[in-house]
Amino acid sequence: MNLRLALAQLNPTVGALDANLQQLKDAYRSAEQAQCSIIAFGELSITGYPPEDLLLKPRFIADQRAALLEFAASTTSCVAVVGVVDSDGERLYNAAAVCADGRVQHIYRKRSLPNYSVFDEKRYFTPGTEPLQLFGVNGIPVGISICEDIWVDDGPHVDLVTSGAEILVSINGSPYHLDKDAEREALIADRASQLGIPICYVNQVGGQDELVFDGGSFVVDHSGELLGRAPLFTESLLITDVEIQHRESRVEPSISLGGRAAPLHADNPVIPIAESMSGDDELYEALVLGTRDYCRKNGFSDVVIGLSGGIDSTLVACVAVDALGADHVHGVAMPSRYSSDHSLTDAEALANNLGVDMRTISIEPAFAAYMEMLDPSFAGRQPGLTWENVQSRCRGQILMALSNEFGWMVLTTGNKSEAAVGYFTIYGDSVGGYAVIKDLLKLKVYDLCRLVNERAGKEVIPNNVIVKPPSAELRPDQRDDQSLPPYEVLDPILSLYVEHDRTAQDIIDAGHDPEMVSRITRLVDIAEYKRRQSPPGVRVTQKAFGKDRRVPITNGYR
Amino acid sequence: MNLRLALAQLNPTVGALDANLQQLKDAYRSAEQAQCSIIAFGELSITGYPPEDLLLKPRFIADQRAALLEFAASTTSCVAVVGVVDSDGERLYNAAAVCADGRVQHIYRKRSLPNYSVFDEKRYFTPGTEPLQLFGVNGIPVGISICEDIWVDDGPHVDLVTSGAEILVSINGSPYHLDKDAEREALIADRASQLGIPICYVNQVGGQDELVFDGGSFVVDHSGELLGRAPLFTESLLITDVEIQHRESRVEPSISLGGRAAPLHADNPVIPIAESMSGDDELYEALVLGTRDYCRKNGFSDVVIGLSGGIDSTLVACVAVDALGADHVHGVAMPSRYSSDHSLTDAEALANNLGVDMRTISIEPAFAAYMEMLDPSFAGRQPGLTWENVQSRCRGQILMALSNEFGWMVLTTGNKSEAAVGYFTIYGDSVGGYAVIKDLLKLKVYDLCRLVNERAGKEVIPNNVIVKPPSAELRPDQRDDQSLPPYEVLDPILSLYVEHDRTAQDIIDAGHDPEMVSRITRLVDIAEYKRRQSPPGVRVTQKAFGKDRRVPITNGYR
Repeated sequence: MNLRLALAQLNPTVGALDANLQQLKDAYRSAEQAQCSIIAFGELSITGYPPEDLLLKPRFIADQRAALLEFAASTTSCVAVVGVVDSDGERLYNAAAVCADGRVQHIYRKRSLPNYSVFDEKRYFTPGTEPLQLFGVNGIPVGISICEDIWVDDGPHVDLVTSGAEILVSINGSPYHLDKDAEREALIADRASQLGIPICYVNQVGGQDELVFDGGSFVVDHSGELLGRAPLFTESLLITDVEIQHRESRVEPSISLGGRAAPLHADNPVIPIAESMSGDDELYEALVLGTRDYCRKNGFSDVVIGLSGGIDSTLVACVAVDALGADHVHGVAMPSRYSSDHSLTDAEALANNLGVDMRTISIEPAFAAYMEMLDPSFAGRQPGLTWENVQSRCRGQILMALSNEFGWMVLTTGNKSEAAVGYFTIYGDSVGGYAVIKDLLKLKVYDLCRLVNERAGKEVIPNNVIVKPPSAELRPDQRDDQSLPPYEVLDPILSLYVEHDRTAQDIIDAGHDPEMVSRITRLVDIAEYKRRQSPPGVRVTQKAFGKDRRVPITNGYR
Repeated sequence: MNLRLALAQLNPTVGALDANLQQLKDAYRSAEQAQCSIIAFGELSITGYPPEDLLLKPRFIADQRAALLEFAASTTSCVAVVGVVDSDGERLYNAAAVCADGRVQHIYRKRSLPNYSVFDEKRYFTPGTEPLQLFGVNGIPVGISICEDIWVDDGPHVDLVTSGAEILVSINGSPYHLDKDAEREALIADRASQLGIPICYVNQVGGQDELVFDGGSFVVDHSGELLGRAPLFTESLLITDVEIQHRESRVEPSISLGGRAAPLHADNPVIPIAESMSGDDELYEALVLGTRDYCRKNGFSDVVIGLSGGIDSTLVACVAVDALGADHVHGVAMPSRYSSDHSLTDAEALANNLGVDMRTISIEPAFAAYMEMLDPSFAGRQPGLTWENVQSRCRGQILMALSNEFGWMVLTTGNKSEAAVGYFTIYGDSVGGYAVIKDLLKLKVYDLCRLVNERAGKEVIPNNVIVKPPSAELRPDQRDDQSLPPYEVLDPILSLYVEHDRTAQDIIDAGHDPEMVSRITRLVDIAEYKRRQSPPGVRVTQKAFGKDRRVPITNGYR
């Protein structure tokens, strides 16, 4: 027997209950028209995931409940599985509401609440402990699990199948990090073949502050074989016919829904299997979607970027053009007395290739003014680093003035290597609303620049940008490698220290140069206060600065 | 029978294992010399509380364990109860180690892990579930509880007493908010009289990033009467003799420690009961300690403050002088074409009264330079708010240049009302390392300014500063009440919306003007991105901006 399923891979906006409700209704109508027996939505699909402290407002919970009831009232025989906040008046539950025939028919409460990394579910929710219940759709017993539940070896899926489930619906709010889609598919395929039943896995898509949800919803059959897959990083309604293998001893679920007969085989839709992506392609698309959604959901159509002719601002400009369109991206070159000629020509060539407008504003008048204003205070001194920081902040000022006047969001261009060691000026090059590549180590920035040219089949990014030695150009003949080790040495140390929770001693024990490691890890520690005041940006690794890595600023551990 | 106790109210630095260990050893020696039978330290007293993601580093856990073993090896017959991280190799526990006679004799694992407000203990720890155990000190059965445990009505204290405990030791890392000390004392007194046994409550003291721990450790007898209390906001070793009322049917604890005989009554120390403080005194001292410790623990001796002659920077300067001494506080007046005469004279009078150095740097040259630099971009426009922001950022630039050159930390002067509605310039007046009054609503800033003069018995703060109408002075004749309602109207709405998780509709329902409430709450929502890039500062309320209030930036809920 076949069951026709719809997986609604939607892009909600956290908190926008009305708009999210409308998305649910629209997808439901499409599933109805396609004669689906079940439609599954993402985790917390009415509030959007993660709603964070909005959940502490009792009226927000009540408003969400009203939206759920309105949705449920609009349902017919197609059975909807909707991620919702459930409340018993005292405690909150991360739940799935089964809606059909005009009302909520069943609630499943999530049992495994993730409270690590970027997840804080135990801050808000109580785990479900009620006896598990199946519900029947066209007589087929269906079980539900929510996100983390299915990652736990002895999660509810085991009991659900033991008690007779012939298909599992897993609803998710699973944020992206590199290669996570492959991880998920492997896990779910494994579960399906072990349990001997099909699993449909539906995920949210879209950017929400630092998180980007990649979608990639899919269905596997009872042997774990992939039946259908929605594309990554875009909304999609995946409609699939799944063959159900009946158990020898069948159970009759206490809740029986879905009057619709199973569709004929002749009616079967062609089930698309979206192609998977290479790691770098994934990363690039995650940056594009994260940037697009942060702008769009916060009401910004345009962005402004300081174009230095360097590799970082170049990549950010490329992402911005793909996210918002060239007409909505504005470049500013801000040369100083220390800028090289190629900085300006490389920035101009890039702007030209991308078709974005670019203006040039020299920072000299402001820089000279500050030197004059500070002269009495600095009398008799040779300010070194201070003048470098002043230049960087003059650029930040210009970008923010353009932002304030024209409503363009400033995109910040710093990468993860710089953020880690504090090789940036607070209130200078770190100003902005969104830091597009904040979670990319420098070597990865190079990879993605090469990818941009590869994908375009031409030199969008001037080759000189990729091959010239990196420099902040804040003093004569400055180069990054005067202050920092080569990125080939730096990035692996940073990855161990920041992304893998190793200590300096661990890294030295692993064979890295002791003096170098001590210096680098110390730099990471003392830059925490600067990172804390940096803008959010897309998380693409398993440990990003931001809500993911919560170290104290005041920290005596060496 | 009497038991002599020492309560070690120490000020650790998070992560500074060696220094914290030395504190423990020093206090232990003092308790030994005073012939104490028990010494109790705070929660996680070797790592300092809260260690946050340092706990995710396996070597940090191992290093802390080594410090514990070193401490335990140094113990004799005086029984130490030490807050530690305990590990079973896989999971971590927030625990108390009972150390005596050269080794760890017993471990109690905290059962109730707070995971709300500023607490994230479920991110790191697993709750203890082992059977409760008493340990005997001079034959007296003692029970332990850790912080949150005792706030839970049916917490371990109930079972401990049922099973024979004749005294409870509660170790804590309980951060300050207004009136929390009174709350704690009332709760513990209540527990003691209900259980019929004495309780000694020991708390950490000191500032750690946004948290300040107020200390105020105390001992109550079996009827809940206060026997002794350590002062608030300062380190202290409180030594107390407690009379133990033996139970009719006594139990023999399986762990028997403490060879020392109970001291004679004649030896009894005079037990001090530190005076309690008024609410405003508490608040002021919390600001002073938070500021002092943030500077000291992060290696800053001096601070620099932009002195506008307004109420906010005035209060911050007073706190800074009390925290660091007048010689370590540097004021800068930064007038513009829109500054009134009284701004400079009020700032000068204050600097004079406080005995801090002050310089004046006009922002005109930089302001004029930016107007010239931006002229081509702004041609034909009348930039309004943009020029206000530019001025504010010129001031931020000056402060940061002085900071970079002289190593002075910038203290940020914004209050909670401004932070809430976004009435500040990002990268302008919000620059700095520590935001001293970020958790004080504006009306409370006035209260504390009056307190400063009251306590001094003279006009430290020029009266004109307190009585003049507040203004940002960024355009001719500007006053706060042109953009904002009077603070008497604004602050109560902000308190409901920000501190009490009410929604706009709730506040309107409570009788506030609908149009006003809609406007104010909308301002709060759209300023979230600015607050996210603001410096940390002392939390003094039950809901501060920062790690306490975790709302999404991208937020469609109205």
